[in-house]
Formats: sequence, C-alpha cells, structure tokens
Amino acid sequence: MLGVTILGNNSAVPAFDRHPTSQVLTMPNRKFLIDCGEGTQIQLIRYKIRRSRISHIFISHLHGDHYFGLVGLLNSFALLGRQQALHVVAPPALQDVLELQFRLADTRMPYPLHFHAIQAPGYLMTVDEVEISCFKTDHRIECFGFVFKEKKKPRRINPEAVKNYQVHYSWFENLQEGRDYEAPDGRIIRNDILTLEAPKGKTYAFCADTKYDESFIPAIQGADMIYHETTYLENFKDQAVKRFHATTTQAATLAKKANVKKLLVGHFSSRYDELDAFETETREIFPNTDLALEGVCYRMP
Amino acid sequence: MLGVTILGNNSAVPAFDRHPTSQVLTMPNRKFLIDCGEGTQIQLIRYKIRRSRISHIFISHLHGDHYFGLVGLLNSFALLGRQQALHVVAPPALQDVLELQFRLADTRMPYPLHFHAIQAPGYLMTVDEVEISCFKTDHRIECFGFVFKEKKKPRRINPEAVKNYQVHYSWFENLQEGRDYEAPDGRIIRNDILTLEAPKGKTYAFCADTKYDESFIPAIQGADMIYHETTYLENFKDQAVKRFHATTTQAATLAKKANVKKLLVGHFSSRYDELDAFETETREIFPNTDLALEGVCYRMP
Repeated sequence: MLGVTILGNNSAVPAFDRHPTSQVLTMPNRKFLIDCGEGTQIQLIRYKIRRSRISHIFISHLHGDHYFGLVGLLNSFALLGRQQALHVVAPPALQDVLELQFRLADTRMPYPLHFHAIQAPGYLMTVDEVEISCFKTDHRIECFGFVFKEKKKPRRINPEAVKNYQVHYSWFENLQEGRDYEAPDGRIIRNDILTLEAPKGKTYAFCADTKYDESFIPAIQGADMIYHETTYLENFKDQAVKRFHATTTQAATLAKKANVKKLLVGHFSSRYDELDAFETETREIFPNTDLALEGVCYRMP
Repeated sequence: MLGVTILGNNSAVPAFDRHPTSQVLTMPNRKFLIDCGEGTQIQLIRYKIRRSRISHIFISHLHGDHYFGLVGLLNSFALLGRQQALHVVAPPALQDVLELQFRLADTRMPYPLHFHAIQAPGYLMTVDEVEISCFKTDHRIECFGFVFKEKKKPRRINPEAVKNYQVHYSWFENLQEGRDYEAPDGRIIRNDILTLEAPKGKTYAFCADTKYDESFIPAIQGADMIYHETTYLENFKDQAVKRFHATTTQAATLAKKANVKKLLVGHFSSRYDELDAFETETREIFPNTDLALEGVCYRMP
C-alpha cells in the first residue's frame, strides 16, 4: 500500500475549485477508488491517474456527493472499451440506481461489472493480500467506513547469514515462510538467524461521513493512516451534531484515542474558503495531521 | 432571447478539458438550462453563471452525458436553500431516476420541483412569451430537440409621430397592441403612422444528438440560430451512421436546407484534440457556423 491521492475534499456543494469526496488508494499492482462524487472521472484525468488500473470501487453511503460520479465513470469505462472486470462494493440499493440508468440508456457493458452489496459491518474481501473490512459510522443515513489492512508480509532473507551458512536458494521460500533450515549435514539453523523481521503490513482506514463516534475506534485502532471528515471548525460543533458531521477537534481526538500514526482531514464545508484553521485546530490535539488537498498523494507513513 | 452559453461541448467521454453536453439559454429575466451532463454545476460556477436564475431545465434524452449532472445540481439547489420553483422537462423515465436517488439519500426539497414528462413531439409550454416545443431526432434511444420561439413583440412607439399628433402617453399601450388612435377632436390616426414595426422575436433550436435527419427541418426552418451536433469530421461518416451521430458536412447541409441564420456545432468526439477542421468543413457549406466553445456566449444574430 503506497499512498492515498485525494480527488475531492469538499462537502456536498462544490465550491472554491474543491470537489465532492473521492480518493484513490494506490497498491503496487492496482488502485482502489474510495467514494466517487460528481466529476471524479474528470479529476482522474486532471491528475493523470490511470483509470484502467482501478479494479475496485468502494462507496460509503448514498448521499450524492459520495456517488453521483459513479455511473458516469462506469459508462466511460464502457465507451473506452474496458475489458477487465470491475468490482463495486456499496450499499445494496446502489445496484438499483445503476441498473435503472444503464437500462434507460441501453448501455452495453463490454466488461464484467461485479456488484458486492454491503450486508453488514465486518470482513468484506481480500485482494492482493489486502484484507478489506467495513464498519458503521454515525451518519444521517446508513454509512460505512472502510479498513484496508495489508497482511503481514514474508520475512526477508538475511543475505550475509545465508551466505555464511551456505543455504541453497531453493530454500529461500521456506525461510521466508518462517521455517528453520535443515543443513545437508543434519544441523538445524533457526529461522531468526537466517531471516530478518518481515516489513509490517500497512493499514489505512477511511472513516467516511460521521458524527464523532467512538464506537468504531476498535476498527481503526493503531492504523498507519486514517482519513476522518472535518466538515466544520470546532466553533460549529452544534451544527456538526445536527448535520451528522464532525469538527476538527473531534477528528483529532478520535485519531489520538485510536492511537493511529497519521490523520488526514477533509470534507470541508463550502462555508470555508481558507482552510488554514483546519490544520491549526487538528494539530493542537493530533500533531501528525495533514489537510487532504486535491491532487496530492499522501504516502503511508 | 439574448444568447446561448456553452458549458459542455464534448461527446460522451470527457477529454481535453471538454465536458459533456450542457448549455444555457439566457432571457432578460431567467435562464433555461439545456441538457445537464456530469459536472454541469461545476461549469456553472466556473463561468460565473447565476444558478438561481435557472427556472427550467430541458433534457433531450437519457444517455448519461446529457443528464448525469442533473441530480447533483438539483441536490445542490436543495443544500443551498433554493426556494423558487424549478421545472424539469424531460423524457418520463427520468422522474424514476431522480425519485429513487432522492429517496435513498433521504433528500428534503426546500423548493417545488415540477417534472414535465415529454409525451410527444410538439408544443410543450410558453414561458415569458417564449413558446417552447420539441421534435424527435434520430438517435439510438428516444431523443428530443427543442425549439424556443419568442412571440412577436409589441409594436414600438414612433416618438416623433406621437409628438406631432399630441398623443397622450396613456394611449401608448393601445398603440403597441396595434389599435388606431382616436384623437379628442374625433380624428382617427392609423396605427402604422404612430408606431414602428415590432422587433422580430428570435428562435433558437437545439437539435440534441442525432443522425442526419431531414425530417425535423420543418421544426427548425428559418431559425435565427440552431445548435447541431458534429460528433465526427466528414471522413468518419460511416462511424457516424453506426453510432447515430452526425458529421460536419451533414450538420452544415441541414442548416442550409433549413435556411437558418446561424449554426453552432459541438458534441465533438474524444478522438479529436484539435477542432479547427470542424470549422473548416462546416463553413465550406454553411459559412455562418461557429464552434460551440465552452464558456463562450453566442449572441442571437
């Protein structure tokens, strides 16, 4: 898991050249698109992100600023002659929206489109050794956050040690899986002498739209990076509660309590032209916070 | 009717910073939006067009590049607290698409949204002395073009003549409506002595997506300005027929046969980066042609 590129960081109404929610999680071999507000396909072009590398699209909930760009993107894939499968993971009713619109336009899909309806919080799927699960957030309509967790990677061969013990390379895969080495002369060499600790798999959590909600802390606990909405600055916390959104202070507090490494904040209300105060207010509580700025790729820490 | 501002001039897949179909017809007191591809609300902001002045939205057909931006725009109107009524004129099934999406998002509309389902070609409505009708084009799915025809305006008062004949201004409205003047001394002064010819009402026709189709010439005959698609240059005419689209030569030929004053062309295929040849090829047949460029307002001739 390499990083997250922000395509849209604004709340519902586009303003100040900020766009509705969408971001791209980049893996070595593919990309995941998370939410797909109106204009996402245009943002993908603008930031030169290869659309064909997107294999999965995750939609958190059915407020339009999180999915109105989806049908257009799927349609463009069809017109561009895409052939490889595409997976959409979303609340069940989205399938009705897509099918109705495809039927009315007499759309012929040249690629397999697999719709995965989210039935309940918990495990969703594993893709390229990344385990994906979802959790409920506290929003006006049913809304899911997503956790992308790289499994522990294989141990690394210690090049000096295998040379010293004259281990044949045909043994390397066994060593990476943690087995001890049995030398031709019968000696047993412990695995931890011949290998180095596996690089830790990274975890990214996307907390979607939500009120301040400690109930999902267990799902994101210790993540390397999370994205949490900050629709409002702290002085609008009453408005935030009323609209099922969160403030700067709330997002930072949650990141701190969940003991994550890094926090990205976005979904800024259209009432704010300047965003500096979002940085100041969050960093007071959780210093390793960045504003999710459009077009910027935030690498996993 | 003052002019038409182009918001999107590309065919289905956005490319080269060109957007899907949308345009704004500006009247003295209101604006009509014609088609509403994805990103239209962002284009409205970009070109500083006051969204609140839009009273009617006309949708030609249910291919996504002509309406995927509609639900987002209606949604933003709601979030911005719009109160004045909005009229959507479109193929009947669009109502299902909108209602499904509003229901899923639990959208509360603070303004009256009137949906006018297009049942058949012909007269649709009259707004501010503009008579609006529609006609069928020849496309892959049912598709309508729209004609906006200003009614004949009142005759103009001839300032010198009314002074000469000492006509009291309380008579002016009668004169504008064509009545003769009855002087206090009993003389009758003919209306054409006291007034000047009424300025002719303008007519604009939007021909939507279509193959070359002479059947709708009667609907657009003699219009002051028409918009006709030119998805392809003339050497792609076989492709055009297959995809139910038109070429440069075809659009210009139709404009000539319909004896219109001015032709705008757009809906350019994403295969074209440069557009110069569209101008050259259309002007060879119909000199008063302009490329419909985004952000540009084309005044009624």
